[in-house]
Amino acid sequence: MSQFSFSVLAKDGAARTGVIRTPRGEIRTPAFMPVGTAGTVKAMLPGTVHDLGADIVLGNTYHLMLRPGAERVARLGGLHKFMNWPHPILTDSGGYQVMSLSQLRKLDEQGVTFQSHIDGASHLLTPERSIEVQLLLGSDIIMVLDECTPFPASFEQAEKSMQLSMRWAARSKTAFAGAQAAEKGHALFGIVQGGVYPELRQRSVRALCDIGFHGYAVGGLAVGEGQENMLATLDVTVPHLPAEQPRYLMGVGKPSDIVGAVLRGIDMFDCVLPTRSGRTGQAFTSEGVLNMRNACHAEDLRPLDARLECSASRDYSRAYIHHLVKSKEILASMLLTWHNLAYYQNLMQRIRAAIQNGDLSDLAKNFRSESVD
Amino acid sequence: MSQFSFSVLAKDGAARTGVIRTPRGEIRTPAFMPVGTAGTVKAMLPGTVHDLGADIVLGNTYHLMLRPGAERVARLGGLHKFMNWPHPILTDSGGYQVMSLSQLRKLDEQGVTFQSHIDGASHLLTPERSIEVQLLLGSDIIMVLDECTPFPASFEQAEKSMQLSMRWAARSKTAFAGAQAAEKGHALFGIVQGGVYPELRQRSVRALCDIGFHGYAVGGLAVGEGQENMLATLDVTVPHLPAEQPRYLMGVGKPSDIVGAVLRGIDMFDCVLPTRSGRTGQAFTSEGVLNMRNACHAEDLRPLDARLECSASRDYSRAYIHHLVKSKEILASMLLTWHNLAYYQNLMQRIRAAIQNGDLSDLAKNFRSESVD
Repeated sequence: MSQFSFSVLAKDGAARTGVIRTPRGEIRTPAFMPVGTAGTVKAMLPGTVHDLGADIVLGNTYHLMLRPGAERVARLGGLHKFMNWPHPILTDSGGYQVMSLSQLRKLDEQGVTFQSHIDGASHLLTPERSIEVQLLLGSDIIMVLDECTPFPASFEQAEKSMQLSMRWAARSKTAFAGAQAAEKGHALFGIVQGGVYPELRQRSVRALCDIGFHGYAVGGLAVGEGQENMLATLDVTVPHLPAEQPRYLMGVGKPSDIVGAVLRGIDMFDCVLPTRSGRTGQAFTSEGVLNMRNACHAEDLRPLDARLECSASRDYSRAYIHHLVKSKEILASMLLTWHNLAYYQNLMQRIRAAIQNGDLSDLAKNFRSESVD
Repeated sequence: MSQFSFSVLAKDGAARTGVIRTPRGEIRTPAFMPVGTAGTVKAMLPGTVHDLGADIVLGNTYHLMLRPGAERVARLGGLHKFMNWPHPILTDSGGYQVMSLSQLRKLDEQGVTFQSHIDGASHLLTPERSIEVQLLLGSDIIMVLDECTPFPASFEQAEKSMQLSMRWAARSKTAFAGAQAAEKGHALFGIVQGGVYPELRQRSVRALCDIGFHGYAVGGLAVGEGQENMLATLDVTVPHLPAEQPRYLMGVGKPSDIVGAVLRGIDMFDCVLPTRSGRTGQAFTSEGVLNMRNACHAEDLRPLDARLECSASRDYSRAYIHHLVKSKEILASMLLTWHNLAYYQNLMQRIRAAIQNGDLSDLAKNFRSESVD
């Protein structure tokens, strides 16, 4: 019997708000998962990440399997203990980063062989090994290994790629079941592929539902297709996903992407944007994205956003943050990452409240006018 | 009437513990001042620095006058407001960094002309301008501009350099008095020079006492002369300093340097060692300095130092910190700086308690055996 469950508490059109229950705690949805690539949400203390309202973070299997290594993390008591984050963790399969970061990749039916970007060592990632690694890490929500179909791709390319991902999804489920992972409290999510082709997306959904997962992710988006194509793909995909299980849009996105996807029934998101932007001097605010390197902030005594209940957003002037960015101070990355995550978590809180109140369309309308992202 | 005062509360041999009172708060002595070069104690939130027990931080006039500029800091409400640190701040004169960081320096009787290491712009730093800049920053404890005599220096070189510093000290006092800075709550410290020559040190003390300052610093040490020469110079200098005013050993030092200097009657310290070492993977512990890059820590589940009441010291394993250092994660700098400052502030707390209890010699004896720094 799985210890993983999802309850929808309220709906507003296609959007829903609810709670995912895991042995390590509850996840309020729609949820934004900060990315903790190498066992740390960069420039953040884990306690601060949780205080902002993040119920779950994402870990990258590719990075962790290469350094410090999954077996080592297991010997040290698992990823939660390692990174001092006792709350839920979702791990990706490693496939996306293998294709984007490693060298000398060779993908075939078995899996993908690649060289580490750290030390050049050769590795083989198969659906079975990805499940094994994620279980060694102790992940609460495990993703199947898939091939992220590039954009653009022809129908034939997207079809072939999607079919491979579906065969890998079946092997992943077998490996997960063989490890009795559900009984140990882990959950497994399948990933819909199929590019921007409605027919392929729907065939992929059917293939995954036949296998059966605890949740369903939409993959292969936010890879250059643009917001319009992304939302159009959700329009033809999400309605076919099971209503009673969580839906996760991988690697998304800008605040307006998130609002658009929630309107279409997505429950979970992850994206490096708030954290990575924080390290390059960008601040998400209700006025849009501010480039804190810009000289216009040099004598601006206003805080980043006094509306947010976050010290980084309220207790430091834009002038000071501009100075820190110009001076390449670590505190610039710390304060901007903290603020950006506060902005994102506040957005998720507003979205959840709006769905509860049945006025998500008002939030979306106001959001489009307030944001210039 | 000055709003600055110093009370000795207890003595133990030449060592003393007391409190410096400033309009912005009290400073418990012996005090260690974390270095906040460019308006930030690198990789630390100001609230965390204060929570560790730091009553005062040091700001670098050289860096701040070049970026963001003293006039700009003044327009923004002063350095305390700028960096969100409402407690006392000591600023150096800028002279030391001009000589160590800038290019095309020309030093003469008037002052020192130099080119900014940031943009190459030409600047003139005089004793008067240094006071003006420190007042624009709003510093609580202002240092006179001096020439830090290099080591080694001949008697004649050290004498000539010391005499210039004494003339500059007199000009600094005149500028400080002309600005009615004492009445506004600021304090001015003179700086003893004279290299390793007892006669020169004592002549420097007499010259400074004739001018009259709120406190007296010992400068020109920790510049390569070694601990033995440094402590020997304190032995022939500190006994001549006024007993009723605070004594500050600039740029020092290792934990054992601090213990040795406190035994000789020093009240205040500043040093980049705990913060800079934190950014290069070093941890100060009761076992000595640990290099966290070392593979021996890779599976060590012990925290850095469970004795310290500091989350960075207790809540993360050495294995995790080793991983963060190897992965060049910002969190490595954050946790190691935090821990190192906790170690230093805990040392100062133990020193103050030992003086109060009259057992500083025990602490010093145990300290030599526990520390391998």
